[in-house]
Amino acid sequence: MKISFKNDYSEGAHPDILQALVNYNEDQQPGYGEDFYSLKAKEIIKKKLNSEKSEIYFVSGGTQANLIVISSILKPYQAVIAATTGHILNNETGAIEATGHKILGVETADGKLRPSDIVQILENHKNIPHQVMPKLVYISNSTELGTIYKAEELQLLSKFCKDNNLYLFMDGARLAQALTSEINDLKFDQIADLTDVFYIGGTKNGALIGEGIVINNPDLQQDFAFNIKQKGALLAKGRLLGIQFLELFKDNLYFELGENANIQAMKIKKVMTENGIQFLSDTSTNQIFPILENTIIQKLSENFEFYVWQKIDEEKSAIRIITSWNTKNYVVEEFTKRLKDFFLK
Amino acid sequence: MKISFKNDYSEGAHPDILQALVNYNEDQQPGYGEDFYSLKAKEIIKKKLNSEKSEIYFVSGGTQANLIVISSILKPYQAVIAATTGHILNNETGAIEATGHKILGVETADGKLRPSDIVQILENHKNIPHQVMPKLVYISNSTELGTIYKAEELQLLSKFCKDNNLYLFMDGARLAQALTSEINDLKFDQIADLTDVFYIGGTKNGALIGEGIVINNPDLQQDFAFNIKQKGALLAKGRLLGIQFLELFKDNLYFELGENANIQAMKIKKVMTENGIQFLSDTSTNQIFPILENTIIQKLSENFEFYVWQKIDEEKSAIRIITSWNTKNYVVEEFTKRLKDFFLK
Amino acid sequence: MKISFKNDYSEGAHPDILQALVNYNEDQQPGYGEDFYSLKAKEIIKKKLNSEKSEIYFVSGGTQANLIVISSILKPYQAVIAATTGHILNNETGAIEATGHKILGVETADGKLRPSDIVQILENHKNIPHQVMPKLVYISNSTELGTIYKAEELQLLSKFCKDNNLYLFMDGARLAQALTSEINDLKFDQIADLTDVFYIGGTKNGALIGEGIVINNPDLQQDFAFNIKQKGALLAKGRLLGIQFLELFKDNLYFELGENANIQAMKIKKVMTENGIQFLSDTSTNQIFPILENTIIQKLSENFEFYVWQKIDEEKSAIRIITSWNTKNYVVEEFTKRLKDFFLK
Amino acid sequence: MKISFKNDYSEGAHPDILQALVNYNEDQQPGYGEDFYSLKAKEIIKKKLNSEKSEIYFVSGGTQANLIVISSILKPYQAVIAATTGHILNNETGAIEATGHKILGVETADGKLRPSDIVQILENHKNIPHQVMPKLVYISNSTELGTIYKAEELQLLSKFCKDNNLYLFMDGARLAQALTSEINDLKFDQIADLTDVFYIGGTKNGALIGEGIVINNPDLQQDFAFNIKQKGALLAKGRLLGIQFLELFKDNLYFELGENANIQAMKIKKVMTENGIQFLSDTSTNQIFPILENTIIQKLSENFEFYVWQKIDEEKSAIRIITSWNTKNYVVEEFTKRLKDFFLK
Repeated sequence: MKISFKNDYSEGAHPDILQALVNYNEDQQPGYGEDFYSLKAKEIIKKKLNSEKSEIYFVSGGTQANLIVISSILKPYQAVIAATTGHILNNETGAIEATGHKILGVETADGKLRPSDIVQILENHKNIPHQVMPKLVYISNSTELGTIYKAEELQLLSKFCKDNNLYLFMDGARLAQALTSEINDLKFDQIADLTDVFYIGGTKNGALIGEGIVINNPDLQQDFAFNIKQKGALLAKGRLLGIQFLELFKDNLYFELGENANIQAMKIKKVMTENGIQFLSDTSTNQIFPILENTIIQKLSENFEFYVWQKIDEEKSAIRIITSWNTKNYVVEEFTKRLKDFFLK
Repeated sequence: MKISFKNDYSEGAHPDILQALVNYNEDQQPGYGEDFYSLKAKEIIKKKLNSEKSEIYFVSGGTQANLIVISSILKPYQAVIAATTGHILNNETGAIEATGHKILGVETADGKLRPSDIVQILENHKNIPHQVMPKLVYISNSTELGTIYKAEELQLLSKFCKDNNLYLFMDGARLAQALTSEINDLKFDQIADLTDVFYIGGTKNGALIGEGIVINNPDLQQDFAFNIKQKGALLAKGRLLGIQFLELFKDNLYFELGENANIQAMKIKKVMTENGIQFLSDTSTNQIFPILENTIIQKLSENFEFYVWQKIDEEKSAIRIITSWNTKNYVVEEFTKRLKDFFLK
Repeated sequence: MKISFKNDYSEGAHPDILQALVNYNEDQQPGYGEDFYSLKAKEIIKKKLNSEKSEIYFVSGGTQANLIVISSILKPYQAVIAATTGHILNNETGAIEATGHKILGVETADGKLRPSDIVQILENHKNIPHQVMPKLVYISNSTELGTIYKAEELQLLSKFCKDNNLYLFMDGARLAQALTSEINDLKFDQIADLTDVFYIGGTKNGALIGEGIVINNPDLQQDFAFNIKQKGALLAKGRLLGIQFLELFKDNLYFELGENANIQAMKIKKVMTENGIQFLSDTSTNQIFPILENTIIQKLSENFEFYVWQKIDEEKSAIRIITSWNTKNYVVEEFTKRLKDFFLK
Repeated sequence: MKISFKNDYSEGAHPDILQALVNYNEDQQPGYGEDFYSLKAKEIIKKKLNSEKSEIYFVSGGTQANLIVISSILKPYQAVIAATTGHILNNETGAIEATGHKILGVETADGKLRPSDIVQILENHKNIPHQVMPKLVYISNSTELGTIYKAEELQLLSKFCKDNNLYLFMDGARLAQALTSEINDLKFDQIADLTDVFYIGGTKNGALIGEGIVINNPDLQQDFAFNIKQKGALLAKGRLLGIQFLELFKDNLYFELGENANIQAMKIKKVMTENGIQFLSDTSTNQIFPILENTIIQKLSENFEFYVWQKIDEEKSAIRIITSWNTKNYVVEEFTKRLKDFFLK
């Protein structure tokens, strides 16, 4: 079977997580998130966020987190601002619109929103009441293009949103990878201060399923559980989520797994760079988008799986390589060895 | 810690299921339900249903299954017919209405819908186009009151629905318990013939999470996966669901677990009946609703957890006892021993 | 052609209204409700309501008013409490549910909600977050059964809602008839104090179309125009609504028209009562529900149109007679003469 | 008071329409569109469309027509394709998204969609089921930029949609102006053949309110009235719409009014062209977008109202001039005289 670099959810869970599920299996616990493990995991995460005012809610997946958060915050006529690369815009089957809300897309070079991007949307939405009211800014960190928000960038964005009466929501499906990038200077607990809501991605970082929604703005916490239940996202066996997040956060596993994903991708990036390969965008997390000759792509695909991302010209294409919490050294070595072989010839 | 008879999702998963998750953990698999285990589990279930035309889709939970199925079938102005005890009506935070559809409730004695119940709804909805159009009949088997549909009852209902151009949807959150009830005569594969859609409940029968939606009516299968994704129910690691259902159905585990739940409840029922205790309704599955003196309820609650379901008079109340796939003999013995003690005195 | 007592919207508009439309026709005016006539009409109505804090919005019809008001107020998981006879529950094709909200119905004897009815709903919705949260009380005045709220009844209801953190919304499709009933003691301006929102029905009281939504609770006014536009209810030629309401309220036409509707119905009621006819409910507005022998109903229907409302027994049925702002004396005389003829025989 | 060229709904209705409302006012008629006038108007329009299979439904306004048509046709996961200038995209407060559907916008030079525009959308939506499914093509004729579809263009688009299993819906808010443009060669009855649905705009062509939705695809007609009622668009006094459309179509008034709007705009365009003024786009209907020096715009605005549409450079801007069914010769003469004065100097 070929080794897959297609995504970061190809395997099951980190072994410690599975072991914990086995260990606590027979324990009788209340349902719907009131179990001991969920409560404990929330307590620990809040402590790490150093944010007593934050409330945490576990759900199964990212699309679910996005649609519940956004539909719980916005009034019917309010809209979301997002980069056109944003996951909610093009990869969630209209989940946000299905809850009644328009997404206003902004073209960006690197998948990151800046105040100047948002200003342009606000300027174009002044024909009251004939247009939607932009009200929530959606960002991803790391982004869908593998880039990250530096601390100062997030601070500027956060201030801009507050000044303009906009909510700021960070999709953290790959938050672990963002925070452990070699160029990152944003601290975990800063996010609780700088966003109204964000979520901590588990599915793409070693859990079987699970995202931890963190609501930092107390106004948005009221009755939030109703929204989770109404959208079909309140697991009867909430322990399944609690145990996993407890395992990820009781020590430092969450960040260690993110770091491994990044390190493996950066090793591949280094070899490529040394061999003169160029990239679609300059990334520092577990996604890289190298531009290769189609003949090389063809040969690589004999042993490895990955997505051909974008045609560059008749001879070259960009591919996407994703590494994960579980990508082993030997796999990367095998891949880079093969790569070098092409260039030695 | 007290022993809980509050629900059938207090523990984790059946050990075989956990072991399978451990065994297959490192295997790289495609996401979103295209993994080997999901495909295999679907194949086996279809074979057991003896229904080549059926398609199967795994989702996380019951409310999710209900809202996706119903919203995918109905046009905006069409409505659901359900018993007022139906889970969708009063226990899912308006999840169905949140997708835009009214539920028309019918009072029943035992939680079961019959053609005569539906006729009355149809008669009252003839003021076109000022009223919703009743279009889908929702039933639960076993019902929320612990009762079940006999084969002939389901056949009659199915025929009535076909004759009246109504879809029939069975909520099978506790389908295993229904099909292994001592009075049951409905076969698993009959359900594929008699309903347009039903789902196979995993969460309340030994899985960590998971319901298997079975669409038997080919008209309703088209593009169904879009609905799952849009509602945030398409797990990236679909293997989590596939492995569990494979384990439940590769042999006979699913039905063995349902049977254990029933047997334990029936043992308690028998002791109670022998001691002259009466019941709110006559059930044959894993839920029983005995009517006890409040003083006895008080004493039982010192060692056991259960819901006080309904006040009967100043001195008596009905409680709900639920047993599960994991209820052990010794627990039931302890409980019945305690019960007998009260009545010996 | 037969004379119709089927509804109160059989004719066009009061001649004064049509004349005003003709008079002001050539005047160029801003669109979307910013025209002179709409602004003037709102000013006058606010003065008559003696409620500086209230804001007024004109829309085309009752279902539209109901769905815009309710969907603008409620959060996704919040529900409406209404009498089962309420127009929104059974006569608007699920318009409220289509905006995502459940309606919790209460059976009543006379179509009127009282605090005790609501208490029972609140008591049954304490399983948080598994049930919807009741949040808005919907009443009609006059009700769909022709009854009205006395001042003290509305005061009690209003206080109960405030005490229980519920919004109170009055559907005033037939408000003119309620306020001019011979037994009414509720003043127009009291309604601004006692409800969060109500609407002033024009369509059933002499306008071509038009309902005036009055929002008394300032919290609910913010951005309300967005909701009107989003639901397709913001008329480009808002002047059509403004001119009509100006005509209805610049003097006393609105109440005169309501009174005529009532007087004509009461004349028929009086003749019926004198002849020993009984009624389904005791009404004092423009709807009456007399119980007649089927043979008499048959004969009446040779010359008059009306709805047969409800079968009473094999020999008798209740019919519904509705009079309107435009019902002429001679029509009522003709009808009562015919009636008396039956009883003379 | 200044003369307004801001829009084509500044005045009331054409006098013949008002007179008809007066003439038929006292006539008792069934409600909800079952009145004699509505039925007669539909019959006449169907005859003029030469399309026995088409069904016609009258509603109050354009946003309402758009949201009812689109939400009645699409399944939850299906999306609309529209030019980014399309009215539904940016001028209806998210009305379409509020019914759950995403709009996929395409940049165009002239507000018109061509098959090549749609191909690009289809190509980008092949990641099933992670993206919405494009299913309905929305066009406006005349467009929001004043341009029109020639017969051959519409034929090509129609064929493309059929070949690709897409529905074609034409927003005809300004259909009269499109069909009476001096360069038009599309016939009224061709539209019934070439689209699945279109609507005949009344509000912007001499009616008080009213758009006539024409559904040509029989599959889309079933139960359509339920959708109208559910969205609050079924007028109790449907006669108000029927009488107006009867008046517009019993002879040729509808097209005469459209033609007047065009002629007046073209007179202004001619004078401008003669004086060397350039235009933002080349239009042939009642909207023109001349580019003028800001000093001239300033002076014109002393006597006339119009929108400043777009800044061109520091010295020039484009304005929008709209003429209407009711624009009088003398008004245009006054305006062009003033214009000429500027250029004589």
